[in-house]
Amino acid sequence: MLQNSDLKIHYDKLDTPFLFVNKPIFFNNLTRLRTEIEGLKCELRPHFKTLRALESTPYLLPKKSSPITVSTMKEAEALASAGYRDIIYAVGIAASKLPRVANLLSKGIEIKVILDSVEQANLLNDFSINNHCAISALIEIDCDGHRGGITPDDPTLVKIAQLLDRGAACFQGILTHAGESYQCFDQASLRAAAQNEVDAAVNAARHLRATDIICNIVSIGSTPTAHSYQNLDGITEVRAGVYGFFDLVMTGIGVCTTHDIAASVVTTVIGHNKERGSLFIDAGWMALSSDRGTASQPKDCGYGLLTDSAGKVLDNLQVTTVNQEHGIIEAVDGSNINFDNFPIGCRLHVLPNHACATASMHQHYHVFDIQTNTYDVWTRVQGW
Amino acid sequence: MLQNSDLKIHYDKLDTPFLFVNKPIFFNNLTRLRTEIEGLKCELRPHFKTLRALESTPYLLPKKSSPITVSTMKEAEALASAGYRDIIYAVGIAASKLPRVANLLSKGIEIKVILDSVEQANLLNDFSINNHCAISALIEIDCDGHRGGITPDDPTLVKIAQLLDRGAACFQGILTHAGESYQCFDQASLRAAAQNEVDAAVNAARHLRATDIICNIVSIGSTPTAHSYQNLDGITEVRAGVYGFFDLVMTGIGVCTTHDIAASVVTTVIGHNKERGSLFIDAGWMALSSDRGTASQPKDCGYGLLTDSAGKVLDNLQVTTVNQEHGIIEAVDGSNINFDNFPIGCRLHVLPNHACATASMHQHYHVFDIQTNTYDVWTRVQGW
Repeated sequence: MLQNSDLKIHYDKLDTPFLFVNKPIFFNNLTRLRTEIEGLKCELRPHFKTLRALESTPYLLPKKSSPITVSTMKEAEALASAGYRDIIYAVGIAASKLPRVANLLSKGIEIKVILDSVEQANLLNDFSINNHCAISALIEIDCDGHRGGITPDDPTLVKIAQLLDRGAACFQGILTHAGESYQCFDQASLRAAAQNEVDAAVNAARHLRATDIICNIVSIGSTPTAHSYQNLDGITEVRAGVYGFFDLVMTGIGVCTTHDIAASVVTTVIGHNKERGSLFIDAGWMALSSDRGTASQPKDCGYGLLTDSAGKVLDNLQVTTVNQEHGIIEAVDGSNINFDNFPIGCRLHVLPNHACATASMHQHYHVFDIQTNTYDVWTRVQGW
Repeated sequence: MLQNSDLKIHYDKLDTPFLFVNKPIFFNNLTRLRTEIEGLKCELRPHFKTLRALESTPYLLPKKSSPITVSTMKEAEALASAGYRDIIYAVGIAASKLPRVANLLSKGIEIKVILDSVEQANLLNDFSINNHCAISALIEIDCDGHRGGITPDDPTLVKIAQLLDRGAACFQGILTHAGESYQCFDQASLRAAAQNEVDAAVNAARHLRATDIICNIVSIGSTPTAHSYQNLDGITEVRAGVYGFFDLVMTGIGVCTTHDIAASVVTTVIGHNKERGSLFIDAGWMALSSDRGTASQPKDCGYGLLTDSAGKVLDNLQVTTVNQEHGIIEAVDGSNINFDNFPIGCRLHVLPNHACATASMHQHYHVFDIQTNTYDVWTRVQGW
């Protein structure tokens, strides 16, 4: 792919292992979903948790006022410093995080937290009074039994919203996440999960509005369901994260193909195991992560599938074992790998099980754009 | 533990999740092994791959001339910049790493690489000639069929050593690693693995010396075998890495107890799942890693066991599920957790499956010493 290009110089100079991003594919993934969601007359609120690199935001978000989701206050603070204002911190709020939330509020950042308990509502009200602020909050709805949240018909939903409405905090709406959709492997079940997610959110909003509670935000989303909605009436926004890079878990679920996977780990073949007909590579779990997301899928991809440096998927090869700094590639059918095809020193790309996990092992992403002949380095915002 | 101490102020001020190091326990672990190995009249060459923090080196190594092992050139360069000189880069050498090796050699750093093939030997000789240097190399010996390396009786061993001896590179000796020892769960099998490791190395050295090849270094080691040697005659040094922190995998193997685990992830209880009688915590795989090293052990510890903030192990609790930024704690016996004992906002420590993996998810370690009443922050050397 980079064969006859200035980019090859950059590619060759980098030590392996490194995280490679194919920018046209990345851009395609972003455009595809934004077009689908906006085509359904809804807003997209991407999740920053996969990318966590500020250099990605101009591609992710059309404007500084565009909405975004985060999984840590660290991401929120980084985005705020880059001028982004509309942020949902989408992990159940804990007291220890509130000073940082209040700090961003005081700077005019519209940060919203999520909760699913009376205790948390009281916490937010008390904190708001004591710190002369008004913490904005969404109630998390449980749409499929996967995680936290209140089921739409649970009377606690109205109780919590009323507590917030009547207290010093500020109730902004509801949010749900179809965590069970990761167990879907065909279009029909994906569409059902997507519809279920919509219905649960719409029902929750209806219950609230029936008691005259204003429900501004009705937020739903997961990458599998985000690509499977047929109607978004009653929904104000859709969230999704891993779709920018995609990965083998998403491929297994069926919302993309391996050709849509924009992030891969470039590795060098460092040895041949003649007895086992396997290859040693210099990418171990430090470069790939230990994530085995495909282990519970119909097609288990080990620690990753391989492509050559031109991006062509090498069927029948998988990373089967990882130590800290090296891995082993074996043939899926148990045959001996033809070492002539994979000489020591040649480079391969490992497609990740779970892009969020693999990207988290890298401080920098090496972003190549063969269409514009540009090479960029993106720096990951790490930590909490 | 930090109850009546100035340290509590630091502890309480830190946002969770964070990596907590109990320095007296850490120091104990280091002292224990060094005393054992030096008591057997041998040298200890710790592995830096677990800690990867320069602030740890004064505890790890008595002098700047003390020997150390690394898993990446990044670690080697960091140690060299801190004045350490005697380094083994213990992952099978690849061509792409050699310029960095040569760079350190030119600065007088005694860095040694490892290899197990004729191709690599030729590579080292050619590079040495072409770059006017003499790459020092050890041949990796396969002592237990676990990984790479040449078996002691394989004639290729002598062939490779002779190639190096007669070429521009510099043959320094042999190195082995008892990778299969991680499958040992009792003292007898650990001792057998340790003895086997010694025998393999001694045999390999003997074969070489029988052909008049000088074998200066005879290097063996893994944390399990390092704690199980009865005699080290013929061995010049022992390597081990995770023993500084220890972890649940090492506890399962039997070389330590949970009381010896010096590194843990501090997390906050952020929610109660009343239906399932489980706790939500703010530590997910981003804080813990996805490593499930105990999954194949007699006692599977899920994603980690728990202690209270005083360090007392909470039997019957495990982290059973992790998402990116939150985790779920459940009772091992399936009972409902008594929420009164774990109120929202309370802190727990997660003991890691695999300390090398968990530490790798953190940019900083928070090191508490209740004996000297000191608190330090160590910074991890990340990347490649």
